Order: sequence, then structure tokens, then C-alpha cells
Amino acid sequence: MPDLPGFDLAGVTAVKNLQDARRIKTQLQNPRIKNVVIIGMGYIALEMCEALRALGLAVDMVKPRPVFLPWLEEAMAAKVREEVEANGVGVHAGHKVHRIEQHNGRLKVVCDGLSLDADMALVGIGVTPNSDVAERSGLALGVQKSIAVDRSLRTSDENIYAAGDCADAYHVVTGKKTWIPLALRANRAGWAAADNVCGIPAQLQGVAGTSVFRVFDMQVASTGLNEKNAAEAGFDPVSNMIKSASRAHSYGSSQPIWVNMIADRKTGRLLGTQIIGKDGVAHRINAAVVALHAGMTVEQFSQTDLGYAPPFGPTWDPCLTAAMQLLKKL
Amino acid sequence: MPDLPGFDLAGVTAVKNLQDARRIKTQLQNPRIKNVVIIGMGYIALEMCEALRALGLAVDMVKPRPVFLPWLEEAMAAKVREEVEANGVGVHAGHKVHRIEQHNGRLKVVCDGLSLDADMALVGIGVTPNSDVAERSGLALGVQKSIAVDRSLRTSDENIYAAGDCADAYHVVTGKKTWIPLALRANRAGWAAADNVCGIPAQLQGVAGTSVFRVFDMQVASTGLNEKNAAEAGFDPVSNMIKSASRAHSYGSSQPIWVNMIADRKTGRLLGTQIIGKDGVAHRINAAVVALHAGMTVEQFSQTDLGYAPPFGPTWDPCLTAAMQLLKKL
Repeated sequence: MPDLPGFDLAGVTAVKNLQDARRIKTQLQNPRIKNVVIIGMGYIALEMCEALRALGLAVDMVKPRPVFLPWLEEAMAAKVREEVEANGVGVHAGHKVHRIEQHNGRLKVVCDGLSLDADMALVGIGVTPNSDVAERSGLALGVQKSIAVDRSLRTSDENIYAAGDCADAYHVVTGKKTWIPLALRANRAGWAAADNVCGIPAQLQGVAGTSVFRVFDMQVASTGLNEKNAAEAGFDPVSNMIKSASRAHSYGSSQPIWVNMIADRKTGRLLGTQIIGKDGVAHRINAAVVALHAGMTVEQFSQTDLGYAPPFGPTWDPCLTAAMQLLKKL
Repeated sequence: MPDLPGFDLAGVTAVKNLQDARRIKTQLQNPRIKNVVIIGMGYIALEMCEALRALGLAVDMVKPRPVFLPWLEEAMAAKVREEVEANGVGVHAGHKVHRIEQHNGRLKVVCDGLSLDADMALVGIGVTPNSDVAERSGLALGVQKSIAVDRSLRTSDENIYAAGDCADAYHVVTGKKTWIPLALRANRAGWAAADNVCGIPAQLQGVAGTSVFRVFDMQVASTGLNEKNAAEAGFDPVSNMIKSASRAHSYGSSQPIWVNMIADRKTGRLLGTQIIGKDGVAHRINAAVVALHAGMTVEQFSQTDLGYAPPFGPTWDPCLTAAMQLLKKL
């Protein structure tokens, strides 16, 4: 919870744990709640905005940084934003939030150049690792103050292991430490830490940074590095976005699908992939995920024998088309 | 077309090319056509049976070999067969077809221990490479008399290239030649042959033998080797099938999904994967496809950072669960 005035008012809730969820559900039973302001525009905030719109509530979203989904290719982020706005959500990016006030039993979220009235405010920003205990105990901290662990999940104290959103991980593309608090890694790290504690050696390779979410009818999937991350990590990134179809043309239910692929100019190595569309996005990313773990070049990936059947895709899977087109730039 | 009596009768049609499709559509406009017998039970035959049932026709399928989808794990094949039979199709496996007779304007497909009356018969068996011209020209033939080509699609004559269902390919798991006539390879080989002919060097790695199809509501995907192929190729195969869920439990639209994974006991290498279910099967196979191209072990694959979001899968993708369970047997 940001340390700002009014964030402790009744009706202002974080979206973090089971208690928060129960509190939100209870509040929503109050028929006077008609307007909700969500502070933040990450996955959780977007999933909340969809859920609230499904209940018929008016929803505004606000965040300090000006770019909607900044980690996503710009044209792709614009399409996701269009989908959110088309579903009646007010999207206000680039407004620093100063405080929340209470007037006549309603809330007012006061921002730079913008004030939003609300019956309820949800806070979905400022995720930080829950590493206070570790820090106070003198354990080494890593990226963004997450608990530094090796591939065995061992901290700087050989008798202490850490697993979950509090701990860091190796990134399989950069080989460097990263902090990406997502469910699969947290779950997997829990098992591996337990194995190690019980004397069964377990080493984790690391994460590719895969994330998938859906907001309204738009599906978004991403893995590896985007161009900016890639440049920061010392690569010479080249990227290309293609538009293809989610299914064979002969299928009426085919939808447009966009794939953005990023590679390293020097080595031809695949560095990352992003996919958006309304159909067939989520599982498609996994071909690229495995390619990242294997350290494949775009050329190698472009030759993979991905499945084809008209109800599920075109002859050339959109990921293959993306790889073929990116090859032309390398 | 098999060289058997009556296969040249009117109303008996192969399912091979555009002309066949047009002939079938024309015949189906005749309202007297109510019963169709399909000879064969491969992808094409199954796709045809679904299309004909959708038109309200009675459909029987017959083939000589006793096992339905013999390349698929037995319990999985049984589930696909159940789905076909639940949609009112008569499945008669293990009946050698002797001839087709004509009686009073109707057809009779005469088999070992079985005769099936029909208004129309479709023949979807006996696919062979179209390599006669190549053979007569003295070009070397490969697996199942397909045209032998190297990774540049060059035949035994350095000035002749071959691409498409007529030509063979290297299998990325065995490293040996195989003949798997499917659309992506044929298409890709056409491009690569054209590049080579035009002086642009192009080499194809080979195929993983990926196939995907849908019959009624059942989706089936397979890549790499099954246990039998793996043993024949000199591996020491171990396999394990798991049942998981296509989406997070909290999602009402989640369906059971079965994943069978095959590995080599000696090296731990992933050799093949098969998936069936009514939801989320087709694109899931592609993670395993890329792993086969990369020569990954099951342990390496089990650590991949596959995407997770509740609308699209459980925290551990079914492919990961399959890998984790198979590891216990290795």
C-alpha cells in the first residue's frame, strides 16, 4: 500500500490476499457502490476491472506512468487498451496519485490534473517482495530487494532457503538475477526448496519471464525480453511484429493474432516473444518459451514442426510466420 | 485406390484431391443418399465422418487392422473411439475389405465377417507417395517408396529437387529418414527447394512428426515417437500418462486433458508426447515439439516456464505435470 494520505480510508482496499478479496466481495454487496477507481494497470488491476464491469459497475483506472502496458510492443499495447476502453473503462495513464479524500461518504482519488469520484478504490500497484524478515536477519537481498537465492533456493545463509514471490531467480535468457513474482515459479520453488531441505538435491534453471492474462476478450502472452530489456542486458535487439490468423482461413471463428518477436542481431538468438489476439494466444506462447530455455536461434525455431489442423491454426503457425519474417531482418 | 473389385463403381470416391471433394459434394445433394461407409480410420476418414454426421447422414467406418488409432496410447485411443461412437458412428475395426458390390442401385461393402450397405462409399486408406515418375526416372527412393531427398531437398540427381508429400524427410528424434505426408512439411519443403533452385542455400532440420486433428469434440495431438516407434528406433522407452485439467479448477469451462509422455530410460531424453481432451489440446503440443527439436531431457522440459493464467490452464501446465510424473519413472 503506498504511503499516501487517505489510503487507509474505509473503502480503499489492496488486491493482495484472501482477506482483501473477502473484503471487496462484502463491500460490493452494498448497492450504493456504483463507481470504482482502480489504482494501477497491471494484470491484477486489469483482471479486477473486467470482474467489476461484469457486475455492471462504472470503472476508472489510473496510474502515474504514461504508457499503458509499457513492457508490451506499442501497437499491441494500443490494441489491448482499445479493448479495455471499448468495454467502458476509463483509462487514465500518466496521472500521479496524490491522495484519497472522503466527501459525503464518497471517495475522491486526487491525481495530477485529474480527480476521480468513487464509492470504492482498489489499489493494485507497488508490488514489492515480502523480504523484511530476511533483511532484518541479515540475509543478502537481490533484485528489487527480493531475497537472493541460488539455483537450490538457498539464501546467503546455508541453512536458510527462500521460495515464493519474496525470492529472486535466474533469467534463462540473460543468465542474470531477476525478480518476477508469478505463480508457477513460486510454486515450483516451494517444491524445490522442500526437496533440498529434505536432502533431495533440486536445482532450478530459472525463469523465462512468461506471463499470460486475459482482459475482456483480449488475450495477452509474453515471454523473455522485450526490445528495451534486451538492449539493457547487452544484446543488440531486432524485433518484428506480424499479423496472422488464429485458425485456418476457412474457419469462421478465426481471429486476427499479432506476434512480436525479438532476436539478437549478433547471434540470431531468440530473445523474446509477445502475442495478442482474441483467440489461441495463451498456449501458443509456450513454443517460444521452450525455445528460450533451449537457447535456440530464430532460424532454428523457424524450422520447428509445430502442429497444424484447420480448426486450430493456419498451416504455418503464427509463431513460425513471425520467425520467418524476423529472419529477413537479421 | 486399392486394387479391389468394385472400387471403380459410381458412388465410390477417394478423399484425395479437389475433384474428389467436388464429386462428394455433388453426390450429397442427392436426397436418396442416407448411408455412407468410410473405408479407413485415419485423420481424413475421421474428419469426413464428422462432416457427414453434421449433415445428418448415417456413417459406418471400417478398416482391416483391429486397433483404432494404433499410434496413440491405448487408453487415449479408447477415449477418442468413445467420442466417435457417442456421435452415432459405427466403428468396425479388424475387418478386411474384400470388394464393393452393387445391388438395386445401392452399394454393399463386403468385408471379413461383415457386410455394410451404403448409398456412398469413401475411401480414405492406402496413402502412398506419388513417386512413380521419380522411380521411372531412376531417382533413389526412400522410406515407403517416397523420393529420397537430403536436407536441401535434393534427390539422388543433383539437378533434381523434390518437395511435398512425395518426398521423405529426416526425423529430428531418430535422425533417420521418415515419410510423414503432412501440410507444414510439404509447404516448407516447397519453399526450401525453390530457394535452393534459385541459388539461396536452404537446409531443413527435419520433422518431429507432429499431427493434430479434431473429431467431434475430441482434440488429438501427437509429436515425436510413441513407445513402439521408440523401441524400434533403438531407444529404451518409458512412458507415463497423466490426467489433468485444461484450465484452472475455478473455471467452469475446464475439461479433463490427458497427456502421455515418452522418454528414453538411458539418457532421460524426451522422445514423444500425445495429448487428448476436449479443450486446450492443439497448441499445448507445441511446447513438446520445440523440446524435441532441441533434444531436451524430460528434466529440462519439466523446468520450462510455461505460461499460467486461470482462464487458460492450471498453475502447472498439464505438459509439466506429465514431465514431473514421468521423471519419477526414469
